[in-house]
Amino acid sequence: MRFVIIGGDAAGMSAASRAKRKKPDMEVIVLEKTRDVSYSACSMPYNIADPERDMNDLVVREASVFIEKNKINLLTGHCVEKIDRENRKVSGKTIDDETFSFDFDKLMIATGASPVLPEIPGYDLPQVMTLKSLEQGRKIKAYIAKNKVNKVVIIGMGYIALEMGEAFRERNIKTTMVKPGPDFLPWMAKDLASVVRKELEANKVGLELGHKISRIVPLKEGVLIECDNISFEADMVLVAMGVKPCSELAKNAGLECEISDSIAVDHHLKTSDDDIYSAGDCADAFHLVTGQKCYIPLALRANRAGWAVADNICGTPAYLPGIVGTSVFKVFDLAVARSGLNVKEAINAGFDPVENTVKTSSRAHNYPGADIIHISMVGDRQTGRLLGAQMVGKDGVAHRINAIAVALHNQMTIKDFVQTDLAYAPPFSPVWDPLLTAANQLVKKMD
Amino acid sequence: MRFVIIGGDAAGMSAASRAKRKKPDMEVIVLEKTRDVSYSACSMPYNIADPERDMNDLVVREASVFIEKNKINLLTGHCVEKIDRENRKVSGKTIDDETFSFDFDKLMIATGASPVLPEIPGYDLPQVMTLKSLEQGRKIKAYIAKNKVNKVVIIGMGYIALEMGEAFRERNIKTTMVKPGPDFLPWMAKDLASVVRKELEANKVGLELGHKISRIVPLKEGVLIECDNISFEADMVLVAMGVKPCSELAKNAGLECEISDSIAVDHHLKTSDDDIYSAGDCADAFHLVTGQKCYIPLALRANRAGWAVADNICGTPAYLPGIVGTSVFKVFDLAVARSGLNVKEAINAGFDPVENTVKTSSRAHNYPGADIIHISMVGDRQTGRLLGAQMVGKDGVAHRINAIAVALHNQMTIKDFVQTDLAYAPPFSPVWDPLLTAANQLVKKMD
Repeated sequence: MRFVIIGGDAAGMSAASRAKRKKPDMEVIVLEKTRDVSYSACSMPYNIADPERDMNDLVVREASVFIEKNKINLLTGHCVEKIDRENRKVSGKTIDDETFSFDFDKLMIATGASPVLPEIPGYDLPQVMTLKSLEQGRKIKAYIAKNKVNKVVIIGMGYIALEMGEAFRERNIKTTMVKPGPDFLPWMAKDLASVVRKELEANKVGLELGHKISRIVPLKEGVLIECDNISFEADMVLVAMGVKPCSELAKNAGLECEISDSIAVDHHLKTSDDDIYSAGDCADAFHLVTGQKCYIPLALRANRAGWAVADNICGTPAYLPGIVGTSVFKVFDLAVARSGLNVKEAINAGFDPVENTVKTSSRAHNYPGADIIHISMVGDRQTGRLLGAQMVGKDGVAHRINAIAVALHNQMTIKDFVQTDLAYAPPFSPVWDPLLTAANQLVKKMD
Repeated sequence: MRFVIIGGDAAGMSAASRAKRKKPDMEVIVLEKTRDVSYSACSMPYNIADPERDMNDLVVREASVFIEKNKINLLTGHCVEKIDRENRKVSGKTIDDETFSFDFDKLMIATGASPVLPEIPGYDLPQVMTLKSLEQGRKIKAYIAKNKVNKVVIIGMGYIALEMGEAFRERNIKTTMVKPGPDFLPWMAKDLASVVRKELEANKVGLELGHKISRIVPLKEGVLIECDNISFEADMVLVAMGVKPCSELAKNAGLECEISDSIAVDHHLKTSDDDIYSAGDCADAFHLVTGQKCYIPLALRANRAGWAVADNICGTPAYLPGIVGTSVFKVFDLAVARSGLNVKEAINAGFDPVENTVKTSSRAHNYPGADIIHISMVGDRQTGRLLGAQMVGKDGVAHRINAIAVALHNQMTIKDFVQTDLAYAPPFSPVWDPLLTAANQLVKKMD
């Protein structure tokens, strides 16, 4: 049996390695269009922040290891251009412009996502960067090393934009973030978003909201980002307005694509074709709180789904129930975490949400290192269910969100969550953990 | 209606305050035998560690506030000696040897626990301390302030002993811990216990196991702790061998006491008498993993149970499902956390446990500050259920255990836990959170 995988990043390589481990006799071919496989994309901002570190530190396993040790037929520089479902065949061109074609018994599409790049003039200037692939990371780092980069403008204010804002400030580069929309972190409870905003401002990141970008034009030195009623000069521009799934191959092959154009997969990661699977940032997932499909491309899901594809192909069926939308990111000294739905998402999913925000100490009364944790928690008035939570703070935020994630997986009510036996010791928590305080308050508000 | 509470610590004062808040007209009398109410007992080791801090910093709310603001009839220095169930009356003596007696409509016993103190000669010497009440904390701190304390022996190696070991080392006092049993932290997986042991040794805490103590005798300066075949000199001795519930009053009144002599309560905190409730360190609880009664006296449960008693008395029924035995403590730079059952407890509860231990990184590959987390996870071979986990490490341990606690509340299987959508970002976690790595490995071992 031949298992062909398009894309050699997290999902693709997870699937390839696991398939070979489970069925050493299976022929596994991975077709990756770049030269890079298996690297920690999420670590790129921290690497870029540190001029001493080599970008290749982020490579988890070299291509040669996959080929020699795992006996995976890993072909980098191979860009698939067509999936021929009728003849069970994929074809494309190599980086050297040679054509190739492979038959498959089972196919996995793990083409990932690419940065959203609005089609306005100037996005193709050499000073304009995006950050998704390791190659793009290398390009940013090399550009800073070789050029006088004193001023950066980041277009977008999502989590990659924020992480890169921190990275540029670490490099002592003047940083301004610009976005067309009027709201800072619009998915976030207002009080929490304002804490993040203050942290950015305290670290001298300029925030410019409500400016529609019309074009980027080259100057003698650097570029000018022209907006409706304001312009910004910069030596370099980073576009970080989010990502979109790379689903063209799948769409052209007539596979079902739905949410945000991502490839529709079932709980077994199967597409609308029985022999074709998809996983990673190009595919959708079931959301366990809404019960609906969603597109939330994150690394854990990609790895887990990659494994599951391999299991299913190797005859040990794997069923992925879904995700609850847990994420965390760092903004200077703050950690920002969420899991589940915010109020707007809850309304869209048909719930009757109640939201409550608390500020509470991360550790016991007077214990050194204690800091404020801000928590916004959302429950459903009808069923009493916990629908989601968001947290911001300098101490004890990142791992606390996991308790919420597990509660959401179990569709707990707030009243049941209030009863959970969470850990207490003065160096780590008040007697009532911040999550319990938030839940207690929300119960009151819902009654 | 008159609601009488015996004991003005966490459970008692929580109940009193909540009852008055819910029913301002209710007469609430609290009879506390010491002069202290409402203090953070768990913070005492950290306070003792710091000579600059006042022990009274640990008082969360002054008695006068409860009396004047909350209108609680709080009587300190009132030691109840008898519960007369037939006549619905409690009686006793004040600190000034005056007798008192109060009728009650509803009674709550919140007498707490006291340190286990084996009856061997010398435990009454002035150099021999225990640590449970604020008064005992003050005594230790004052003793160190007034006397030349260069060497301390701690009898016992439970979590209070360990926290106090750290406190004494912070004060630069030579510290030796002695216990009769042969195993260090016997409830802990061996690999994890050995990590804790190394941390203590690295911080120059002497550990002497397997020494039965026969007596403590006074020397010209300090005392001699005589064991079977060895003796230890010390300027001060701390006995920290665990606690026992203060249930004599209840027992003498004919109330049911079971596990470790603790007062038996139902899910509404009711004792075997319909008008008498009990909460806090004197009462038992249902364990949600075993489904059986247990005695695990911890602060969160005391507070929560105190509230529940008030709710039940005020006519808004509160049902406490139970606990899962979550705890965390700090030992120098390590956090040690657990939730649920270890192998021995699982066998005793009738499970067929499988245990697996992993060592994994607390953060992403190469991210600064990453450290090893050691996790031991226990599952049930028959049902696949997660039964418990223990963790030790310097980074990211304390709050991670809460995800396990929530999973145990929901009686999740390991296979379901493996699917949970936990948070990932390089500064906080590897892609697969240590808990997921532990669960993945355990699933493999159980298959």
